[in-house]
Amino acid sequence: MAVRTIEVRERVLARNDELAAQVRRRLGEAGVLTYNLVSSPGSGKTMLLERTLADLGEELAVAVVTGDVQTQNDADRLARHTDRLVQAVVTNGACHLDARQVATALDAIDLDRTRLLFIENVGNLVCPASWDLGEDAKVVLFSVTEGEDKPAKYPKMFEKARYAVLSKMDLLPHVPFDVDRAVACARGVNPDLEFLFTSALQPEGMQEWYAFLRAQVRRRSAA
Amino acid sequence: MAVRTIEVRERVLARNDELAAQVRRRLGEAGVLTYNLVSSPGSGKTMLLERTLADLGEELAVAVVTGDVQTQNDADRLARHTDRLVQAVVTNGACHLDARQVATALDAIDLDRTRLLFIENVGNLVCPASWDLGEDAKVVLFSVTEGEDKPAKYPKMFEKARYAVLSKMDLLPHVPFDVDRAVACARGVNPDLEFLFTSALQPEGMQEWYAFLRAQVRRRSAA
Repeated sequence: MAVRTIEVRERVLARNDELAAQVRRRLGEAGVLTYNLVSSPGSGKTMLLERTLADLGEELAVAVVTGDVQTQNDADRLARHTDRLVQAVVTNGACHLDARQVATALDAIDLDRTRLLFIENVGNLVCPASWDLGEDAKVVLFSVTEGEDKPAKYPKMFEKARYAVLSKMDLLPHVPFDVDRAVACARGVNPDLEFLFTSALQPEGMQEWYAFLRAQVRRRSAA
Repeated sequence: MAVRTIEVRERVLARNDELAAQVRRRLGEAGVLTYNLVSSPGSGKTMLLERTLADLGEELAVAVVTGDVQTQNDADRLARHTDRLVQAVVTNGACHLDARQVATALDAIDLDRTRLLFIENVGNLVCPASWDLGEDAKVVLFSVTEGEDKPAKYPKMFEKARYAVLSKMDLLPHVPFDVDRAVACARGVNPDLEFLFTSALQPEGMQEWYAFLRAQVRRRSAA
């Protein structure tokens, strides 16, 4: 029984990898830089995207594919901040997005008018780690209101991510969170992980993130 | 392919339900009240249990089965606060605990000396909702640093839970979180959900939770 489950899972994942490769080729040809945003529920993915769309949506020609288990709440929140296209995917109970859902969502997005695409995954630090969506890189968020050892406890996600965003930095004075310990814990899992620090509730709290995005989009356009 | 996956999943879940019924019978015969603690990573399950073990561990004869994807960090944290038995389960990548893992963990616990058992599930608001562990009730945690609409976005978990703990209440002055809106959102999904409010970092912040646990254990012992 267990063996059968694993076999079927392997085949489903292999098929997903093929579709993800197609998505990656399509996005690459269109010159779109794509980040797959992953985190536990409540770490601040949607808030980060709300601020980013409001402040950089036009400048960097941002589009968003946002996945949710049941609602379109996130897409509705994001659409308030931008005229840019926000495409919702409801997974109907599934705990992650897959490449087929992303491919379908892309049909509704004008890629020629897009330079930076965010895929907001379902809030889950386990399952989305196994599913390639054709992104350039995974960006994992976690917040200072969580434990510093999240990277050790959910290592696969932090291994697969190229960037980590430590969010809600404005709450640091009010919580027993040791930033150095969290970074060291993450680097123990993935020595190449690049850290960014955000506070979406504060005017200056997004500047490092924005500078990062501008530089990355510039680099992609020059390539 | 998709049909095959669903078939296999159905059979795995049916087998889990059988094992969960056996666990429930075993715990019932021993007179142990059992709560399955579920939440996203970082909502405060382990902190809640640390405080509860330190303050009520002896009084209510508490034992804990704690599940983690890769580490035994939570079990180590909990063991510092109690001489009571804390049994760790490492799921090796799986995104939830199952009834077989709980049954095995129970073999290491002296149920005759236990009145209240917590099962700390893997941090995940999606997958653990489908897996009965033989508990008396699921307790779902979420914190005021997350969005108020978590219940609508992860409805299955909030439907399956009998109790909801809104944690980190001490951070309310520093975050844009509307408690009434969160409770209304949860009741929209599950009108019978009973709410408890905690602040594990403050001396008085656990009193409502402790009163609840004392009353529930007393009721079970009288039954």
